Amino acid sequence: MEQALLNLTKEIQGLKTNQTLLLEKVEAYQRETSHEIRQLKAKSSNPGLSQTYDSENESESSFKPSVLSTSPSQSSRFSTSYTGASSATAKRTENVEKQLYNHRIVLTTYPGQVGVSPIPMKWGSADPSIRGPIVVSRHPDSIKLRNAVGAHGGSYSVYRALSIAMRELDPDHKPDLYNTEPVFKFGPHKSWNDPNQIVSLDPFGADIGELFKGQLKKGLDIRPTIAITRAHMRLAEIEDEVKRGLLKVDGKIVCSDAGELMVTKGAIEPVWWLPGVARRFGVEESTLRRALFEDTGGMYPELITRPDLKVFLPPIGGLSIYIFGNPAFLSDPSKKLTVRVHDECNGSAQEGGVGLIVYFRKEGRALGEVTKYLVYNARKRAEGGDTAALYFKRTENVAGVKDMRFQGTMPDVLHYLGITKIDRMISMSNMKYDAIVGSGIKIIERIPIPDGMLPPDSQVEIDAKVASGYFSHNQVVLDLESVKGRAWEDVEH
Amino acid sequence: MEQALLNLTKEIQGLKTNQTLLLEKVEAYQRETSHEIRQLKAKSSNPGLSQTYDSENESESSFKPSVLSTSPSQSSRFSTSYTGASSATAKRTENVEKQLYNHRIVLTTYPGQVGVSPIPMKWGSADPSIRGPIVVSRHPDSIKLRNAVGAHGGSYSVYRALSIAMRELDPDHKPDLYNTEPVFKFGPHKSWNDPNQIVSLDPFGADIGELFKGQLKKGLDIRPTIAITRAHMRLAEIEDEVKRGLLKVDGKIVCSDAGELMVTKGAIEPVWWLPGVARRFGVEESTLRRALFEDTGGMYPELITRPDLKVFLPPIGGLSIYIFGNPAFLSDPSKKLTVRVHDECNGSAQEGGVGLIVYFRKEGRALGEVTKYLVYNARKRAEGGDTAALYFKRTENVAGVKDMRFQGTMPDVLHYLGITKIDRMISMSNMKYDAIVGSGIKIIERIPIPDGMLPPDSQVEIDAKVASGYFSHNQVVLDLESVKGRAWEDVEH
Repeated sequence: MEQALLNLTKEIQGLKTNQTLLLEKVEAYQRETSHEIRQLKAKSSNPGLSQTYDSENESESSFKPSVLSTSPSQSSRFSTSYTGASSATAKRTENVEKQLYNHRIVLTTYPGQVGVSPIPMKWGSADPSIRGPIVVSRHPDSIKLRNAVGAHGGSYSVYRALSIAMRELDPDHKPDLYNTEPVFKFGPHKSWNDPNQIVSLDPFGADIGELFKGQLKKGLDIRPTIAITRAHMRLAEIEDEVKRGLLKVDGKIVCSDAGELMVTKGAIEPVWWLPGVARRFGVEESTLRRALFEDTGGMYPELITRPDLKVFLPPIGGLSIYIFGNPAFLSDPSKKLTVRVHDECNGSAQEGGVGLIVYFRKEGRALGEVTKYLVYNARKRAEGGDTAALYFKRTENVAGVKDMRFQGTMPDVLHYLGITKIDRMISMSNMKYDAIVGSGIKIIERIPIPDGMLPPDSQVEIDAKVASGYFSHNQVVLDLESVKGRAWEDVEH
Repeated sequence: MEQALLNLTKEIQGLKTNQTLLLEKVEAYQRETSHEIRQLKAKSSNPGLSQTYDSENESESSFKPSVLSTSPSQSSRFSTSYTGASSATAKRTENVEKQLYNHRIVLTTYPGQVGVSPIPMKWGSADPSIRGPIVVSRHPDSIKLRNAVGAHGGSYSVYRALSIAMRELDPDHKPDLYNTEPVFKFGPHKSWNDPNQIVSLDPFGADIGELFKGQLKKGLDIRPTIAITRAHMRLAEIEDEVKRGLLKVDGKIVCSDAGELMVTKGAIEPVWWLPGVARRFGVEESTLRRALFEDTGGMYPELITRPDLKVFLPPIGGLSIYIFGNPAFLSDPSKKLTVRVHDECNGSAQEGGVGLIVYFRKEGRALGEVTKYLVYNARKRAEGGDTAALYFKRTENVAGVKDMRFQGTMPDVLHYLGITKIDRMISMSNMKYDAIVGSGIKIIERIPIPDGMLPPDSQVEIDAKVASGYFSHNQVVLDLESVKGRAWEDVEH
């Protein structure tokens, strides 16, 4: 008996030692969950902004984890120790922070957590009530209901955070969408009803005010990811062509002697349906998630911990579309359509067709401008001069890869617009051509960029691209070493 | 005796209940730490790429947490359960992932973790050996040594992650910086020796190859955040002025009849020293960190858990500089300097001075293009037409704030370039003027943008800005309602 007692005492000792070891580790995760029930309870009795701002005097102790009690020094690990400031400053800081965020820090969330119940969503359903809205906000009202990881506005969420820190922007602000509706309503098109046809944007992103009116009224934080407007646009090249009489003022597309163009403009934020994006790029969803987490320096742990959330709004630049002529003609196969993934093309619009420019915000083949300029330097300084043969090699030396644009998701925007055939595709890129045709859109004619419109400095780049499989009507330059760019002597004078 | 036994049994029961409750929660955090010692040991015996790619057959069991053993279903929670795929697929996926990442998922790190020892850094020291390099890479070689949160390339880190997932880019690739050095070496200037003069870029970012040669050789993943190159540039406006004889071809700055310009270009990635950025914006560092985490949808938990890491490389657009004339003149007070934070200004360069354009990648007042177009729509549709009085109000309705650009960190680039006075500042913004002058740079003359260069559609915006404190030589339009923009009738035809 005594032996049994001793054994039990020993066992308890062992268990207690384990618990002590666990204590500190548990705390971080525990905070994330313990306050949630409290928050949920508080919400129904006193919801919204006023409560958030009234909670300054709330006792710290009410946040304490309930399963295990912790020592004060441990519980303040996150809330004060990282300021590196005096305790008075720390106190003040804590108050400002509490005014903004009257909840514990949730480092990441998990599918099994109390109250977590993502709004149902069925990607690729043309019925918006089945598809469901995209909700990404971590606002207390929607953090449990979110069905997406990331943030609205791409990179601009960082500026939004700055505004909130400076108390310029109410953290609870929700956009007033009155009168902001798109000037032209695209779709729904057949392509919207296929989860694999559009994977990198939300086709309902322009019309959320109308489609999810009920949920918006209930306070759900749904935001537009697409905006369509109309404007006059001036392009120096067009002004020149109007002056030279090559383009005539028709009052509809070219609307003044100054070469002003009438254009329907659209801005589209990236909304990635991860299973579809993974399939498009030929990788497993889990690999995509892991890479997006690891190789962005640990951005968005929910990419890992929330496999149930299938949508990601990445902090990257979006894309812009410019439509010349009647936007309704884009999805009308009887109308002639000219498409350029980067330049002006209002010619066919004046002939009763419609023109479209899609502009992707990916500087320097998505390698970024710093990498681009580093490569410029390496090319200019190359022994034997800058040659087309070395063009991609230099890029690979610096960036590890010659191109990061990956046209896999590019056709999505064409499907959003309901395009089924393109009469004139202005592009030299076989990658773009293959991506578009592979996605089921017919291309009648390919037009290379007119030679006269290429700046002289870009010949090395163009030749390298043509040789590596870009398209051009001109004969392919096979002796790539013979095409040389400017060296420093020429550039420096 | 029996009572004592009963009490002990009860106590054990309680402890066991607690442990069961804790078990699942502990696991996530435990993974983050338990494998680190193992990883550290492995590194010295068999480092680098080959080991990473050879570890496919490594037993899963060796990764298991040591403090508490867990059931198989629990331990596979992260590695397989989120694929939603068959177990065969899951197995294959796991292997691909292991090829890329032969380590446990580290959701976030903490200052006290085994081996964590950030490279010392003293922001604002003009001595690079004291300042130290910025290391942000989560590569196994540097994750413990990192002294910064975030990723290189701003938003482009997302594309980099895609490249790696697709096996296009070796996750271990380090840039070959041969011949990429800047074409002009700026500084060090006096301003570099003040931690509060430059807080949003790394003045040593262009010269890391030279300054941190030793560390680079040892394999530390340091990367340039600034690149300086030289190029010919064509601007339609300049071509026009050359044709009209307003600008003469001098072979140095305007180098051809076609209006080609000789320009020194720079790309600068954001590198934020958080204590300085917080001070600049008048907020506590902890509030800034919390907002950057919360209001980006939970991006980078290390902003919260790593108060010891003071530098953040945010996923936002960087800035570009274009220098017309000798870059050395920028920091030479005897030379006339014209600055434009957005437009062309090569006039004074031709008069023996130097011109500078700084171009910030902040679309639509950093509100993003979707917000911008939504506001356009609301303005055009306003009852009583689009008026200057409503300009900012409409923006606030939609975005919650009229402007998110915050010029606080804007002068940093001027200090990087060693600028101490500006002869001609081309800008209508008082915010910019105040920020520059407040940072200690003298402005001799302010020049508004010439009226002839403003597109007619922008008059509403310009008048609203002038009235709200933007600068202009013209008389301020006080009756803002009288300035109306185009309504739909005009735009639609």
